[in-house]
Amino acid sequence: MRAVVCTDFESSEVKEVETPAPGPGEVLIEVSRVQLSVTECMLYRGTEIAHHDEVARRIRESNGGAQLFGHEFCGRIMAVGEGVDAYAESDRVYAPGKPYCGECTYCRSNHQHLCDDITSLGFDCPGALAEYVRMPVEPLCTLPDSVSDAEGAALQPMASSVLCTLDADVEPGDTVVVIGAGVMGYQCALLADRFGAGTVYTVDVRNRPLELAEQNGVKAIDATETDVVEAVNKATDGIGADVVFEAVGGDQSHATEGGEPIAQAFEVVRRGGTVVQVSHIEGEIDLLPRYLRSKSIRWINPRKGVVAIQPGTDTGRLAADLVADGEVPIEDYITHELDGLEEFETAVDITLNKDEYDALGPAQLVLD
Amino acid sequence: MRAVVCTDFESSEVKEVETPAPGPGEVLIEVSRVQLSVTECMLYRGTEIAHHDEVARRIRESNGGAQLFGHEFCGRIMAVGEGVDAYAESDRVYAPGKPYCGECTYCRSNHQHLCDDITSLGFDCPGALAEYVRMPVEPLCTLPDSVSDAEGAALQPMASSVLCTLDADVEPGDTVVVIGAGVMGYQCALLADRFGAGTVYTVDVRNRPLELAEQNGVKAIDATETDVVEAVNKATDGIGADVVFEAVGGDQSHATEGGEPIAQAFEVVRRGGTVVQVSHIEGEIDLLPRYLRSKSIRWINPRKGVVAIQPGTDTGRLAADLVADGEVPIEDYITHELDGLEEFETAVDITLNKDEYDALGPAQLVLD
Amino acid sequence: MRAVVCTDFESSEVKEVETPAPGPGEVLIEVSRVQLSVTECMLYRGTEIAHHDEVARRIRESNGGAQLFGHEFCGRIMAVGEGVDAYAESDRVYAPGKPYCGECTYCRSNHQHLCDDITSLGFDCPGALAEYVRMPVEPLCTLPDSVSDAEGAALQPMASSVLCTLDADVEPGDTVVVIGAGVMGYQCALLADRFGAGTVYTVDVRNRPLELAEQNGVKAIDATETDVVEAVNKATDGIGADVVFEAVGGDQSHATEGGEPIAQAFEVVRRGGTVVQVSHIEGEIDLLPRYLRSKSIRWINPRKGVVAIQPGTDTGRLAADLVADGEVPIEDYITHELDGLEEFETAVDITLNKDEYDALGPAQLVLD
Amino acid sequence: MRAVVCTDFESSEVKEVETPAPGPGEVLIEVSRVQLSVTECMLYRGTEIAHHDEVARRIRESNGGAQLFGHEFCGRIMAVGEGVDAYAESDRVYAPGKPYCGECTYCRSNHQHLCDDITSLGFDCPGALAEYVRMPVEPLCTLPDSVSDAEGAALQPMASSVLCTLDADVEPGDTVVVIGAGVMGYQCALLADRFGAGTVYTVDVRNRPLELAEQNGVKAIDATETDVVEAVNKATDGIGADVVFEAVGGDQSHATEGGEPIAQAFEVVRRGGTVVQVSHIEGEIDLLPRYLRSKSIRWINPRKGVVAIQPGTDTGRLAADLVADGEVPIEDYITHELDGLEEFETAVDITLNKDEYDALGPAQLVLD
Repeated sequence: MRAVVCTDFESSEVKEVETPAPGPGEVLIEVSRVQLSVTECMLYRGTEIAHHDEVARRIRESNGGAQLFGHEFCGRIMAVGEGVDAYAESDRVYAPGKPYCGECTYCRSNHQHLCDDITSLGFDCPGALAEYVRMPVEPLCTLPDSVSDAEGAALQPMASSVLCTLDADVEPGDTVVVIGAGVMGYQCALLADRFGAGTVYTVDVRNRPLELAEQNGVKAIDATETDVVEAVNKATDGIGADVVFEAVGGDQSHATEGGEPIAQAFEVVRRGGTVVQVSHIEGEIDLLPRYLRSKSIRWINPRKGVVAIQPGTDTGRLAADLVADGEVPIEDYITHELDGLEEFETAVDITLNKDEYDALGPAQLVLD
Repeated sequence: MRAVVCTDFESSEVKEVETPAPGPGEVLIEVSRVQLSVTECMLYRGTEIAHHDEVARRIRESNGGAQLFGHEFCGRIMAVGEGVDAYAESDRVYAPGKPYCGECTYCRSNHQHLCDDITSLGFDCPGALAEYVRMPVEPLCTLPDSVSDAEGAALQPMASSVLCTLDADVEPGDTVVVIGAGVMGYQCALLADRFGAGTVYTVDVRNRPLELAEQNGVKAIDATETDVVEAVNKATDGIGADVVFEAVGGDQSHATEGGEPIAQAFEVVRRGGTVVQVSHIEGEIDLLPRYLRSKSIRWINPRKGVVAIQPGTDTGRLAADLVADGEVPIEDYITHELDGLEEFETAVDITLNKDEYDALGPAQLVLD
Repeated sequence: MRAVVCTDFESSEVKEVETPAPGPGEVLIEVSRVQLSVTECMLYRGTEIAHHDEVARRIRESNGGAQLFGHEFCGRIMAVGEGVDAYAESDRVYAPGKPYCGECTYCRSNHQHLCDDITSLGFDCPGALAEYVRMPVEPLCTLPDSVSDAEGAALQPMASSVLCTLDADVEPGDTVVVIGAGVMGYQCALLADRFGAGTVYTVDVRNRPLELAEQNGVKAIDATETDVVEAVNKATDGIGADVVFEAVGGDQSHATEGGEPIAQAFEVVRRGGTVVQVSHIEGEIDLLPRYLRSKSIRWINPRKGVVAIQPGTDTGRLAADLVADGEVPIEDYITHELDGLEEFETAVDITLNKDEYDALGPAQLVLD
Repeated sequence: MRAVVCTDFESSEVKEVETPAPGPGEVLIEVSRVQLSVTECMLYRGTEIAHHDEVARRIRESNGGAQLFGHEFCGRIMAVGEGVDAYAESDRVYAPGKPYCGECTYCRSNHQHLCDDITSLGFDCPGALAEYVRMPVEPLCTLPDSVSDAEGAALQPMASSVLCTLDADVEPGDTVVVIGAGVMGYQCALLADRFGAGTVYTVDVRNRPLELAEQNGVKAIDATETDVVEAVNKATDGIGADVVFEAVGGDQSHATEGGEPIAQAFEVVRRGGTVVQVSHIEGEIDLLPRYLRSKSIRWINPRKGVVAIQPGTDTGRLAADLVADGEVPIEDYITHELDGLEEFETAVDITLNKDEYDALGPAQLVLD
């Protein structure tokens, strides 16, 4: 089969590699679409964030290039390994979860998403930047017919947004503020609304995301024109927001002073409210604990992976169903679809420089 | 002022009575609209349900007729008593709550909705079947401009539906079944959907309610054609519903055998699921406790009155806001609007015989 | 090995049967102690309750007698089957759970305790009324050294009590009433206290259980002398109990009238409170739904089986740890320990006629 | 009456002032005991923390000295103002709460503890460093007879500890670590145990607090000898603690590196666990958000004031009842009882220099 192999940081080629065969409990999936993630693109460029050492080692130890990245994808099952009952050939699937060990204390007590020895697709093993990908069935979820391939390849981050929003414990009627209308910020805003919030405000500086928010029933605040804290306080009789999602992340320096996103989050949240850290803040920040203490703020960092909700439902399943029903139109953020694995380098460039390309979400590669 | 006074059961007239003056902590409200409740109509006809004895006593002790009934209404504040700061003249209001004593252990520990000595408007004191009604401010809630008078007069039951749905603890993605699409069943179905349910099914035997449900994003099951339990089990991979609302009530005989609504509720709910008793079942029923125990069912009887949700929000406020935002179109069920207090007897008849009159909700009286 | 085999209802003998060998995922356990359950004893006597048909079929189809009953036991692992990593030879264990299928929707979504196809030890397969018992590892839990064999054999019902008390959602400071100080009532009372209840009342008519309750920090109400509702109302400023456990069960006729235990539970619980149905009520009861509705009562039937609590903890583990730490002295209720499988018939008699034998809990058989 | 008046920072005298008279809704309390708080002592010394400006203004504007401090006290009601029904002369009381405005959005929606315009006893108005103190009744709570005066004067911080522990949402069986065995750390440890924690570890470097912890069923970790993270990981199969209380506070510099208390808290908590910020960290700290995000940590800053729990119970009532029942022996930390208001300066010195005086808690002044 053909696959993207990385011969070094910032150096890749598409070449023929051996098609894997599914072992016991595994399936082989024919990839329809694959979407890059910002983290993958940063790692490919050599940035020293989480997974960097692993990636470096995989490149170094590879013979002729390592099959890296590609955990956001959808495809069709081509072959099932021994003992696989829950899936059959031609099932359409995506992978909201990650393979877990099944043996550690977390796994044995039904907390598999916290597994000690989780396997990261595309980092610890070959991902879906290839015609086929082999993997155990546990992380998979079937796709309803009404979910398109484009949506299917974009569903894995949506499953994370579902978990972020569940962990936020939004109460019916809550005032919710989402700072940053990137992919996950947009999804969290729509999900908070869907899960019963009274009024949801999305804050951004770009026109298009604010337009999309308004089209989907969420109030848009253009931070270039409007003071967020003032606007929300005015709308809430001076109380502030019950729940705030910080969905900008990146390089920030002070959490409780000045106007950076996280500082804004702590300022706009009401006494006794919750700030949900959706995005990753790089490096260190300064913080005045007294400020958080005086307002009785809960600062939560959501769980990751796939979590059971009710019998028959988990966060991966719910994400797929919400998209299938048109509740969260994630296709709004799929702006760049490229043809074939050969476009990998272009896709990296678009994903890392969205504004330059007028992109909202990461680029997708279409395989056929 | 003019008011409906009841000289006996099934006997009333509209006549001139003294306009009350608001005491300390009270307001005088000019009534715009008043909607009857089924309970009030049954009491007027002399049925021996809760409040019967009170009503009989009030009639007996009255001199020339008692001002009874009228707790579902909206109007405009005409005068405020001493010490009232939260309301001003010309505020539009409705009354989601009931006056509480403020002194009992419940009240002093912020559980006023469970007060030992609650005052029922229209039973314990004159209600809004008059040009003006006087009452303490605690039970009141202001109406947003976008709520019409018709909606305002129908909001009190909606506040109860909000509390029923909150107490149901619907989780995102839940399968919810609402048995009975009367006023509260319809509202609970739409609210469960709004608060994050995955799929909501409304069960009824009448066309119009089922059409309205479908128009509002809720799946309709026509019980004359479809077996509810079979349909839900099929849709949920044999699991059943996470939450079921019993919103038919009335005269039922067996809770765990046969096909009456409550028996259907216990049958369609999944193991470990919740049945919410929205409507009042009359008299006694037989029940096989082993059946409930074997399925680990929670049977809950929702709280009543107005309950605080978050700072600045309670169930009465949330009900008004949801209607103002068009989230729950309660006007769909307002089918009969009559002109003036003189139509009281007709309104009673319509409210008690909805099918005959092609009515969905109770009749309203328009005052001008 | 030697085992109790039932040749008919009320007819058994101890005889030599083939010692089973553990298959993949299974272990063979040398039984140290086995405790009967009331349900098993009733089934042995032929009572037509749940499992009756299964038991009848097993007896009918057996060749020379069926190995029935024996799910409350402890023992030591003698051999482990293929693929068993979590347990090793000589581990001391008990079985809080039941084997589940691992394939149904419940199991695949981490709700194994609700499995569609649960296997009941001693009903669907041979239990521990034998020198050895073979079973899959999932239902097992290791025993701390400080748990005696007598306690180990009595731990399975304690794990159910832990789940009942968790499902009751006792809040710190709650007033809790436990009606009936049988094995599970006693345990729920002590657990409610341990989990933060303010005051716990245990109600019974027998001296010894009431003495034991008092010795363990729980207030005793002798129902032969004291009116429970009056006493609790007096102690709570007229409010009533936040949570009530109905732990008598048996043959009751009316749930909301008269003085039977369940009626007492609904009467003593406060408005908005919770009644937990711990014990099994036989047959049908009459019930006035209006009574439950007017008090906004939640009536819950706790989940069964083993449920995950936190990473590394489930209800089976917690039960064992609480006994190991001396928090719930379950040995107080182990009053009759008999020597050898031959005493099976005597054990049945004691367990079904506790008062006659001055027994508090079921009889245990000691194997050596 | 005689009262401590502050003529400047670090300058006070006891002198005769006018005895206040209770207004409507107020009572006059004869003070039995008053306990200083560290915050009060720091403010008296002129440290620029919260309330500093208020204190400076009160001193500046006073004519002959301001009556400052004294919110931790107990006493007996001597006179009740107009409209006070809930209290009577000779009732023993303490003040877990603070007077609230009753008018703001928080107050009107049953969130009085978050009131916009809370009055701080001893800062905004005269406190209990006097023979009598006048105050509104809302913040008061009666004392059971079995609570001594010494305990009564120490109950206000205990009510805060109750709220911290409630907000921690300890689950039955949880592993809890409390870093710092000062007054509130000690109380939170015992409360976590009382509310159902499985194992509670108290960490300190002083012998006496660790001995007291062990005597009360809490495991003691002497941080001078034992590595906390290692010890807890070993005991939890590598998982870590479900809930960690940071109860040291003070001057700390880095939250996610090095071995300061807050860094230790984030290190010892398990993935998906909760860190409760009990104590006040002064000034700014550095923090690596990625660390918290990678472990999915919830960092909560508990609510303050008195919060309703159930009908008839709030955090102030529960604190008093737990001490009355001997569940949390707060008298263990009352080590210095001085005779009369004249000892104010000595009490300040002891409270700020506990180790030097071999004190565990703040000093108390006994009035008679």
